Amino acid sequence: MPIQTPITDLIRIKVPIIQGGMIWCSGWRLASAVSNAGGLGTLGSGSMYPEVLREHLAKLQTETNRPYAVNLPLLYPSMEEHIQSCIDFQVPVVITSAGSPRTHTERLKKAGIVVMHVVSSAAFALKSQEAGVDAVIAEGFEAGGHNGREETTTMVLIPAVRDAVKIPVIAAGGIADGRAMAAALALGADAVQIGSRFAASQESSAHPAFKEAILRAKEGDTQLTLKELAPVRLIKNAFYQEVQSAYNRGASKDELQALLGRGRAKKGMFEGDLYAGELEIGQVAQSIHDLPSARDITQTIYEDCVQTLSQLSRLAR
Amino acid sequence: MPIQTPITDLIRIKVPIIQGGMIWCSGWRLASAVSNAGGLGTLGSGSMYPEVLREHLAKLQTETNRPYAVNLPLLYPSMEEHIQSCIDFQVPVVITSAGSPRTHTERLKKAGIVVMHVVSSAAFALKSQEAGVDAVIAEGFEAGGHNGREETTTMVLIPAVRDAVKIPVIAAGGIADGRAMAAALALGADAVQIGSRFAASQESSAHPAFKEAILRAKEGDTQLTLKELAPVRLIKNAFYQEVQSAYNRGASKDELQALLGRGRAKKGMFEGDLYAGELEIGQVAQSIHDLPSARDITQTIYEDCVQTLSQLSRLAR
Repeated sequence: MPIQTPITDLIRIKVPIIQGGMIWCSGWRLASAVSNAGGLGTLGSGSMYPEVLREHLAKLQTETNRPYAVNLPLLYPSMEEHIQSCIDFQVPVVITSAGSPRTHTERLKKAGIVVMHVVSSAAFALKSQEAGVDAVIAEGFEAGGHNGREETTTMVLIPAVRDAVKIPVIAAGGIADGRAMAAALALGADAVQIGSRFAASQESSAHPAFKEAILRAKEGDTQLTLKELAPVRLIKNAFYQEVQSAYNRGASKDELQALLGRGRAKKGMFEGDLYAGELEIGQVAQSIHDLPSARDITQTIYEDCVQTLSQLSRLAR
Repeated sequence: MPIQTPITDLIRIKVPIIQGGMIWCSGWRLASAVSNAGGLGTLGSGSMYPEVLREHLAKLQTETNRPYAVNLPLLYPSMEEHIQSCIDFQVPVVITSAGSPRTHTERLKKAGIVVMHVVSSAAFALKSQEAGVDAVIAEGFEAGGHNGREETTTMVLIPAVRDAVKIPVIAAGGIADGRAMAAALALGADAVQIGSRFAASQESSAHPAFKEAILRAKEGDTQLTLKELAPVRLIKNAFYQEVQSAYNRGASKDELQALLGRGRAKKGMFEGDLYAGELEIGQVAQSIHDLPSARDITQTIYEDCVQTLSQLSRLAR
């Protein structure tokens, strides 16, 4: 019994689960596994040079004939070349984030690409709709990685975005099991985007040490920080403590930028430096305790969601 | 078609909606209206002198013959006398918060009172269960007023608490409509506690100016602050800006305590001083735009929840 929503219709997927395009975690292995399981796999282009993205696109196309997506975090370099690659490879779906939806949507849509934009407020969801995107991904405060300044949580954000726009809404932030997926649908979402749970999967390209750090994370172990630069949720490791010390001595924005430097995310998530690296993950890491295959994750969340909805319907009878 | 859960059975209410016992908002008018509508009305004793709580208890008992609760925020004065009043008046339910569940649970339960404790983490939910409480109220980061240090949101907190304890779980934080109530049930809650929505009701004893401030609040207008003292979510008014200035100059905990002083909450929420007062409200204030009766709020949320559950069951078919 498939869950049919405006999102499954729009992008022709069987399961309304989108794998987040997390930098350093989301190559062709993870994306093809999720797409082959019926969801929407996503390449995270933020950590790729142009030729690397093209290699992943070529490999992904040999590994799946199902729809897939590319995430373009617009604050990273190489975006112009990445966009051209998406057009050249006739990528079915592009997910833009960390920038204005006005910049690239028209060009991508003219190339026949479905465009979704990541937002953290109802106001930006409305702007995205006006810019012509096909759907918005509304990401709450609890999500890992880069995030909004308003700190609005998924529980509050999704109904607000649902009421603000007419286009389909995808919920993100705090979703790692079937109960949370059912909750997101109750809030008005047409699909969910799941990041952290897939970061800790067999096919994730994250360093094994980072995957182990996700499994060890307990409640209160992540924090949204560096709001003066680009707000990001990460594990409170030694690097985070350095950032806190900088705040405590009243560091300026420039000092924070110098402390962050370049390559922190790669160092932490790809090279496995758990001390000096940036370890981006969501609050829901506290509930992640194993490293299944992406197929198992997709199927289990979907089946548990269907079961939760069925139990709830008996509650209302 | 009633929603029957372990909570409706435990406290013999028709509708699994608990009105939060918000200080300065929750007197006998609000509590009796919610209880008479089938939910669980709650007196907020944190803002009451002992004789004032007894007056409210006497009045409440003449206005309803349904179950009701008293909230005891243990960090406030007069708690010893408040507990004796609850025992003397044979209060059906006591909700303890902002303190240890070990301190008073045994005494209250011996007096035949159902005891619930407010928690913001699965670890404290487990401690509360071990202390013998009948249920926990798990309150997410998005909730108004005093809150946990871990910043765990409702979406992440409820499944974690559900998995940690065997006793009933009530979800709080970010819930102001039937969609969010349905989402909370999907996450594993047996009932919801609703604060902000009832603060902006006809029967709320909040100052009319504070009620208007709730209706004006937009996304990003509240913030969790003063974590060094007792973390509290409030509207970003002039007082909040003063607190931020103190942080920016590296103020000590003592300086923050001196700035907060005494009576800030009363000044803001009861006397209507929107500049110098503390205005405690949840993130979900962004979606509150009217001042209905508490009966209308209770019934509308319940009916919309039932409708949402029914729509979801069609989705899974």
